[in-house]
Amino acid sequence: MNEIEARLEALGVVLPEPAAPVANYVPFMRTGNQVHVSGQVSFAPEGLITGRLGADLDLEAGQRAARFCAINLIAQFKAACGGDLSRVKQVVKLGGFVNADPAFTDVPKVINGASDLIGEVFGESGRHARSAVGVAVLPLGAAVEVDAIIEVS
Amino acid sequence: MNEIEARLEALGVVLPEPAAPVANYVPFMRTGNQVHVSGQVSFAPEGLITGRLGADLDLEAGQRAARFCAINLIAQFKAACGGDLSRVKQVVKLGGFVNADPAFTDVPKVINGASDLIGEVFGESGRHARSAVGVAVLPLGAAVEVDAIIEVS
Amino acid sequence: MNEIEARLEALGVVLPEPAAPVANYVPFMRTGNQVHVSGQVSFAPEGLITGRLGADLDLEAGQRAARFCAINLIAQFKAACGGDLSRVKQVVKLGGFVNADPAFTDVPKVINGASDLIGEVFGESGRHARSAVGVAVLPLGAAVEVDAIIEVS
Repeated sequence: MNEIEARLEALGVVLPEPAAPVANYVPFMRTGNQVHVSGQVSFAPEGLITGRLGADLDLEAGQRAARFCAINLIAQFKAACGGDLSRVKQVVKLGGFVNADPAFTDVPKVINGASDLIGEVFGESGRHARSAVGVAVLPLGAAVEVDAIIEVS
Repeated sequence: MNEIEARLEALGVVLPEPAAPVANYVPFMRTGNQVHVSGQVSFAPEGLITGRLGADLDLEAGQRAARFCAINLIAQFKAACGGDLSRVKQVVKLGGFVNADPAFTDVPKVINGASDLIGEVFGESGRHARSAVGVAVLPLGAAVEVDAIIEVS
Repeated sequence: MNEIEARLEALGVVLPEPAAPVANYVPFMRTGNQVHVSGQVSFAPEGLITGRLGADLDLEAGQRAARFCAINLIAQFKAACGGDLSRVKQVVKLGGFVNADPAFTDVPKVINGASDLIGEVFGESGRHARSAVGVAVLPLGAAVEVDAIIEVS
């Protein structure tokens, strides 16, 4: 077990089977040393976390949803690296989208649920640039969606 | 006529003149082997397709709008490749934005209108990562906007 | 003083201290020759410009907000280049997000406030691809957020 897998285990994170896209696209695509990972929605073990922040969900529930987006991203990173997460040289960028009521301005705190996990798992290699915005609606009513660009060796 | 142009013809797709941006930016910019293509809105031969999914437009109309975004992207790909679409080595990422009512959760199915065409035209080279979100409003009231990253040879 | 700094001075632009992120992410991350810069919100000298275009803010106020996003981006570019803005080889892509009422369709004109400044400061090297969308809400209620990809030497 490499260091990244050990951290996942210590954090109690169980990676799911990476989700298969439901259409004519792929979960990740490599170009040069970059891998672009498709937006991952807030699928949790109990099913998709749906709802709008500031209306149906509170901050804590939103952070949990974002954390599952990160777990789903890591599952894709692993698939993109042929199963070896130590080949993730750097998480470069996360793009965070929050299903949010127009009055809910704590969008960054929600996406911290994803950023914090990436930091805990990947350490220095997990330090990423980020954008975070509140949108009108997400696929299947998901609460959060996050996409990513990583650099692989 | 190369293979890509032949597929476009077989699909009955006529590429428009690539749209000129209306401001101090450019339709695409190359960095290394990547070309980043500006967001293309749903211009159709009859004019801009406007309206909100789940309010003014149904799924089928949204998919048609997304397909025109893809057609407009391909016109930009061609310009970026000096007229030779066979130089598109890989469509890496599509970013899809749907003008959507908060109750409309079929955002991915709308963007499939773009992904499917890219797949039909470029085959294996058209397999792309993707994100798809529903937004409050798009330029000029457009129904759909899609941007892209491609790798060129 | 290099050419870029001279243009900033001629335009009366004073770069702020680059904002430190408020969470487990970084303001920019380099991969190869690309630097991905985190979304910068519309912080002005008087504080954060908040509000919704088409409701609380008019076009001119929105353009001013977007201009400050660009100023904040340039401050990050400078930090990413070790203080030497002449190392910005190309501004490749801006991603513009406008806090907008669903009836406000002048989203591109708002983001022109950012694109125009980038053009004035960087000239040919400032010519960038762009997307611009209207979103439901932005961090802390900001009016505008813009992220960027640049190529550095």
